[in-house]
Amino acid sequence: MRYSKLFAKTQKEVPSDASLISHKLLHQAGYIRESNAGRYFFLPLGNRVQNKIINVVREEMDAAGAQEMLAPVLHPLSLWQETNRDNSAGFELMKIEDRRGAAFALGGTAEEMFVDVVRKFQISYKDLPFNIYQFSLKFRDEMRARGGLLRVREFIMKDAYSFHTNEEDFKLEYKKMWDAYVRIFEKLGLKCVVVESDNGYIGGDYCHEFVVVSEAGESRFLMTEDGEYAAHEDVAKFYKEDKNSSDDELDLEEVDAVRGNTMEDGVKFHNLPLWQQIKDVVFVDDKGRYILAVIRGDFDVNEVKLKHAVDAYDLRPAHDEEIRSDLGSEPGFISPVGIRNGLKDGVELVIVGDTSLRTVKNAYGGANAKNVDLLNVNIGRDYNVDIEADIAMAEAGFLDEAGKRPLNEDKGIEVGNIFQLGYHYSNKMSGASFVDDTGMGQPFYMGCYGIGIGRTMATIAEVFNDENGLVWPKNVAPFHVYLASVGNDEEVIAKADELYKNLTASGVEVFYDDRDERPGSKFKDADLMGMPLRLVVSSRSLEAGGVEWKLRSAGSEPEIVALSELETKLADFLAN
Amino acid sequence: MRYSKLFAKTQKEVPSDASLISHKLLHQAGYIRESNAGRYFFLPLGNRVQNKIINVVREEMDAAGAQEMLAPVLHPLSLWQETNRDNSAGFELMKIEDRRGAAFALGGTAEEMFVDVVRKFQISYKDLPFNIYQFSLKFRDEMRARGGLLRVREFIMKDAYSFHTNEEDFKLEYKKMWDAYVRIFEKLGLKCVVVESDNGYIGGDYCHEFVVVSEAGESRFLMTEDGEYAAHEDVAKFYKEDKNSSDDELDLEEVDAVRGNTMEDGVKFHNLPLWQQIKDVVFVDDKGRYILAVIRGDFDVNEVKLKHAVDAYDLRPAHDEEIRSDLGSEPGFISPVGIRNGLKDGVELVIVGDTSLRTVKNAYGGANAKNVDLLNVNIGRDYNVDIEADIAMAEAGFLDEAGKRPLNEDKGIEVGNIFQLGYHYSNKMSGASFVDDTGMGQPFYMGCYGIGIGRTMATIAEVFNDENGLVWPKNVAPFHVYLASVGNDEEVIAKADELYKNLTASGVEVFYDDRDERPGSKFKDADLMGMPLRLVVSSRSLEAGGVEWKLRSAGSEPEIVALSELETKLADFLAN
Repeated sequence: MRYSKLFAKTQKEVPSDASLISHKLLHQAGYIRESNAGRYFFLPLGNRVQNKIINVVREEMDAAGAQEMLAPVLHPLSLWQETNRDNSAGFELMKIEDRRGAAFALGGTAEEMFVDVVRKFQISYKDLPFNIYQFSLKFRDEMRARGGLLRVREFIMKDAYSFHTNEEDFKLEYKKMWDAYVRIFEKLGLKCVVVESDNGYIGGDYCHEFVVVSEAGESRFLMTEDGEYAAHEDVAKFYKEDKNSSDDELDLEEVDAVRGNTMEDGVKFHNLPLWQQIKDVVFVDDKGRYILAVIRGDFDVNEVKLKHAVDAYDLRPAHDEEIRSDLGSEPGFISPVGIRNGLKDGVELVIVGDTSLRTVKNAYGGANAKNVDLLNVNIGRDYNVDIEADIAMAEAGFLDEAGKRPLNEDKGIEVGNIFQLGYHYSNKMSGASFVDDTGMGQPFYMGCYGIGIGRTMATIAEVFNDENGLVWPKNVAPFHVYLASVGNDEEVIAKADELYKNLTASGVEVFYDDRDERPGSKFKDADLMGMPLRLVVSSRSLEAGGVEWKLRSAGSEPEIVALSELETKLADFLAN
Repeated sequence: MRYSKLFAKTQKEVPSDASLISHKLLHQAGYIRESNAGRYFFLPLGNRVQNKIINVVREEMDAAGAQEMLAPVLHPLSLWQETNRDNSAGFELMKIEDRRGAAFALGGTAEEMFVDVVRKFQISYKDLPFNIYQFSLKFRDEMRARGGLLRVREFIMKDAYSFHTNEEDFKLEYKKMWDAYVRIFEKLGLKCVVVESDNGYIGGDYCHEFVVVSEAGESRFLMTEDGEYAAHEDVAKFYKEDKNSSDDELDLEEVDAVRGNTMEDGVKFHNLPLWQQIKDVVFVDDKGRYILAVIRGDFDVNEVKLKHAVDAYDLRPAHDEEIRSDLGSEPGFISPVGIRNGLKDGVELVIVGDTSLRTVKNAYGGANAKNVDLLNVNIGRDYNVDIEADIAMAEAGFLDEAGKRPLNEDKGIEVGNIFQLGYHYSNKMSGASFVDDTGMGQPFYMGCYGIGIGRTMATIAEVFNDENGLVWPKNVAPFHVYLASVGNDEEVIAKADELYKNLTASGVEVFYDDRDERPGSKFKDADLMGMPLRLVVSSRSLEAGGVEWKLRSAGSEPEIVALSELETKLADFLAN
């Protein structure tokens, strides 16, 4: 590729909303350009990087025995209705009707589509397992796009779906995909932490995120020093140490408490520890139910865990007025004790208690009335919960579940994920079954596996850069070599032209800066664009008997390589 | 790939709506599966074919200097409004709003998007020309999908857009793309006719379709025997021979004519030739104007030509009632003579006369009243037209424009097209300009170039098949070799396994039928799936010292190839 002919060239200015280095550099170096918020053009250089990432992913997926195919991106909405995902995916799902009135979802993920195509065939246990995947556009109606390619509204995803006779067989594939992902990200130069995570609207019982540690990321996770336990904050478990659970239960006591509404106000007023206080948080779920989350005062409620506990896909905080009128309680003085007595007719209330409530005796907290508190509140004696579960948010410094190793907190970018789906889809979609060896129909046991291609590209850019620009790993660089001629000397230009022709013919990917520009400007663009190797042809280099060779990576000094040795040295560089 | 692990296997049944052989075979052989009308899954085999076609197209586009990139498929609707294509594309365009209220078109083609990304950069004449292209999903809200992959609602298209300083430079690119297309379709085994065609809602002044002659196609075109002139029926020009234009003009005469409403009724009643009759056809256009098309009686009106003549993007036949109430005329007796006298207030009428009217003197036809006709009607004397143009439909047997060579008619599938766009987009979209060598802004001169990938695949299937199934050309076959083991003999299976492993390792694409099935069933699937070469390992073949070698193409007899010679023979086969 000749730079003179390239669309589009480097830019000085930076998008006004660009806070991340990957966003700035990919824009300035001419790799991407925003079409509108969250939707990007991949310019020729960026498209080459994206295609290289796709090829790495394809190679490893194929090597793992997965089969590439392609589904339409307009999914019949009826399929999403079969699994109720038209609701659970919420506002992120875009919907459209065609002129005949057929309704479609713009695919955000494609579980239903893949189950649907599979159930069109008569699948026998002998055909199983298989893992089918695609590279296809995905749509997310994100409220807030951010960070260039990191959180967008339209992107290419590699999404794979595996079908199995049973869980045991699935687990082999889960492991295989895990290993394939490790190899993929290694090839792409990315170091991943694999963290347990939440399945969101995908469904299933467990899943893992592949996270690249980075301040630019949105995935907060907790991990033991040795890395053996790593989990997204949404699902991280921890040790809830016992406080005073062997104390005798004292008599429940109602006391006047003219205090403010916060937990700290309670601590100050009663001069008792925070952990002994009961924390009560009220939500409203997607079915209109009130959810009262009760937890030990020194913990916070984890809304994702709470959602799973009550099987809701959406929660919002209840308003003060709702708490007063519908629950007959008082913000800042809510209590599980006797709260059902004040419920308005027709109001449904689910009380969810965190397991930490069992670590405390004689707790204190509100009494469902302004400026009245209860002392010596004990679960089981004074109140019961509808659901007892782990709904607590892990924090840095807490101990792992076994109570042994402290948890550290880190942040990163989720570049891939693998999901156990189990029977989540095959139970909901009729006919999603295979014929077993006795001739009976059995539901598929499933898994799914995603990698965001554009986000992976942004992550590489976020990790590999310096103050002068991008520093692409060889495997994903748009071109191997940035070849520049310096000056207008005819011999120089002829030699550079010849070199471009010969190297290209021998399979080296050469980006040739053939412009009539000052050397400084060419070197600046070379650094900004970030090809791994820069070759410069100048009068000086020719006098010294060759071309100037300089790696883009840190600490590389320019050296002269004789023309006769160039090809060997290049082959060596590319092979290693 | 092992057949035992393939999703999805061959099918006996045929889709109920499948009338085309390509549709039937691609379905039965497990290449595609309908999701819903006009939207298809590409199953693993079909996806491989599609990817191979993409690679052939990419190779030739890159060789021609075009630069691959990628645009979002949700196009800001405001861009389509800039060029008025949100109207001119009509119902085929699907539109959607996101939850913030931003409106989008689902891209049918991407001229606006590519102009938009280009105008974001400061382009100098030195940066020009460039040709940027993508492989991306396209959406068409077709009223009627048909023929499997031939006319679908969602498909991958290679669409390219070139930007130039002027027409002369553009013409070089047009030729380059023409030549690239010839090479692409040659590599894919397709013989194309290049026909002049209509630009539809793309715009511009001229364009060419690449058509593969086939009964399955929808492109009707006319061509001289020597192939030098070939044009789609929408635009085909022809020689309108003179009839009696040197006759004296006789006096206009009104006569009673109690006759039926058809042209034939007129011929019979007056006992005059059809060509002497005036044919009048009334349409209503998208702006609500009445369009009266007047033409020599032995010709038909070409609606596409008529649309261009009046600059409309939609025409529908006027209803009888509209002709009576709004035009004050009478169906079957319409005449350009005096029709303006009967127009209702506010009705806009455009009279378009075909150039053939000049070849006739003393014509006859209606008089805008039931059972009244006019004789000796002469254009210029008795009536005038607002627009005089070629609006006639060419037919087989007519002569080419020079009046020399007869036109033959043929039908085919449009697999690609190239369009001159000129200033069509750059004049409508503000800022679509480059800086010329004097520092002035100048609009881009443009072209665009499309290839439908799925349709190309269907066309290859339509052309290459026999009574037993598909017969893929080597370049696009999903695998080079269909390897089958016959029987359960351990030695046979071991040898076949070994062969599969070795050939695959040496880069041959092998589809290995390792199923425990009868030979007949394996051979049937081999024929149906259509890989170019079938290799069979059986006890018999091993006794004879090798494997059975049989080409899928017509007339090939099975022969035994010694194992020691197989690799050489295969390399030879693949290279040629």
